[in-house]
Amino acid sequence: MNNRQIVLAARPTGFPCETDFELLETPTVEPADGQFLVKTSYLSVDPYMRGRMNDAPSYADPVAIGQVMVGACVGQIVQSRNARFPEGHYVSGMFGWQEYALSEGEGVRRLDPDAAPISTALHVLGMPGLTAYFGLLDIGQAEAGDTVVVSGAAGAVGSVVGQLAKLIGCRVVGVAGSDEKIRHIVTDLGYDAGFNYKTTDSYYAALKERCPNGIDVYFDNVGGPITDAVFPLLNQSAHVAICGQISQYNAVEVSQGPRLLWHLIVKRATVRGFLVLDFAEHYRKALSQLTRWYREGKLNCRERVTDGIENAPRAFIEMMQGANIGKQLVKI
Amino acid sequence: MNNRQIVLAARPTGFPCETDFELLETPTVEPADGQFLVKTSYLSVDPYMRGRMNDAPSYADPVAIGQVMVGACVGQIVQSRNARFPEGHYVSGMFGWQEYALSEGEGVRRLDPDAAPISTALHVLGMPGLTAYFGLLDIGQAEAGDTVVVSGAAGAVGSVVGQLAKLIGCRVVGVAGSDEKIRHIVTDLGYDAGFNYKTTDSYYAALKERCPNGIDVYFDNVGGPITDAVFPLLNQSAHVAICGQISQYNAVEVSQGPRLLWHLIVKRATVRGFLVLDFAEHYRKALSQLTRWYREGKLNCRERVTDGIENAPRAFIEMMQGANIGKQLVKI
Repeated sequence: MNNRQIVLAARPTGFPCETDFELLETPTVEPADGQFLVKTSYLSVDPYMRGRMNDAPSYADPVAIGQVMVGACVGQIVQSRNARFPEGHYVSGMFGWQEYALSEGEGVRRLDPDAAPISTALHVLGMPGLTAYFGLLDIGQAEAGDTVVVSGAAGAVGSVVGQLAKLIGCRVVGVAGSDEKIRHIVTDLGYDAGFNYKTTDSYYAALKERCPNGIDVYFDNVGGPITDAVFPLLNQSAHVAICGQISQYNAVEVSQGPRLLWHLIVKRATVRGFLVLDFAEHYRKALSQLTRWYREGKLNCRERVTDGIENAPRAFIEMMQGANIGKQLVKI
Repeated sequence: MNNRQIVLAARPTGFPCETDFELLETPTVEPADGQFLVKTSYLSVDPYMRGRMNDAPSYADPVAIGQVMVGACVGQIVQSRNARFPEGHYVSGMFGWQEYALSEGEGVRRLDPDAAPISTALHVLGMPGLTAYFGLLDIGQAEAGDTVVVSGAAGAVGSVVGQLAKLIGCRVVGVAGSDEKIRHIVTDLGYDAGFNYKTTDSYYAALKERCPNGIDVYFDNVGGPITDAVFPLLNQSAHVAICGQISQYNAVEVSQGPRLLWHLIVKRATVRGFLVLDFAEHYRKALSQLTRWYREGKLNCRERVTDGIENAPRAFIEMMQGANIGKQLVKI
């Protein structure tokens, strides 16, 4: 039984390309005592992976050249020598870009396929959902009546942010990169309004029109000119949650823009960056709330599924280019 | 008895000049019932006044053309029809750029000239001292062992920030605009290190050398390229207190700089703007603490005194140009 894996072949300069990755085929290894073997069903590709491809100090080590790319997966246990993780059970974990993974159970969550499709553990009931939850409620401090703006509004995280903000009684405005995405967030996700930044001249005017009472919470996945346009519209005591800056991740030089910090003084506004990892001790409670809303039909998350581990690099690149509405997955 | 006043004659474009102000002479008015007349001894000139000269919405109304410039003063009550504020007492209040002011006591604080020289109510025991106190401790969340960087380190606020940070056990690095200022903050105020940004090529290298353990708290009075150099050096869970952005206040166009927000994600850093006014309910406790430290000789604040109300515009302009070490005052 062979294991097909995608390893990092070269560190991308600027935008990654398919030649930065390589497909290897290696024999699978039998689980030792305490281990189990997972056959992955879905791999999640996420923006944070771009950072791991750089050889730069960060909150986690970079992926080494020749090493299997990191990534969260869901799958089924096919062999086990670990009593807590018996054969046949479904699990999620950081199994990497490969068809089979050995694990000792660290960071592995058991899934109930009757409660929700297992792929949801990679989006609305997984890391992107938790990121949306803590970013909106803890970092963004969103409350009923607030106007919330979300950049990357149709992505895996943004989709959940907007729906959570509606559930707690906010006005929600989304920014995304196609008319189809804007239709989706307004029609399917319940956003109050949105605009396609690729066909809008003045982001400031577009936001001002859609946020007549100013902006109380900004959930930023994107950065750059969209964020520049948000700052002048922040209300007093506004909160900005910096979740991602995907517009900057492939920059070769540091991008320049208008200085924004002076807006914060008179507005007494707070800007805070965060990683979902910092909320690990509260995951259980948040997942139970998200699961309840999901089962009540209150959280929609569209999936874009690319077939085959060999196509994972392309799926990642397309996700970074914004091809996905909702969550980009690779079906293995 | 005539009252000499400085009124705003024109709204400055860019850097203010003396012709933006006008000296008027009007008869003083007798206090009505409930009022008292203050003869001002010292006028405080502060960076926030630049904002009040613009006709733009802010936390306070702009000064109208022909209106006496706003400003805090200390002085003595020379006539009174208000039992709470008897003749002969010393007070501080927002009396404006003038020799005499009528007041009904709103926002007026009685001063004890035996406890501290009355001019200290305009700096270390007044608004700048309170700004330093709340900005460092509440917004900046400074704690013993932290490395604190202060821009505008030799100014009225920065002088107090650095000394407070030393009192609570931080390593403190100051950035200021002359070698004399750097000597002052290190020798007289106890800063651990500093550098003159006007003669330093790489602010990043200068900060990195002086902050070998990174930066936990940044108290920013200045903004611009100094702030740009701080962000890459922020530690995990760092706090940035945006008190002022004096480098930006006279800009005619929005200044451009490197995009900084992505630094906040992995660092989980918080940037917060503030106005000291938001802490009004805690002023009494903070002033009592500052007064105790001052009387114990632990808070030094040099004054730069310009003589004569007619020279207030020049004193303001020179302060904005960085001529002052410590607090810029006008003696009336």
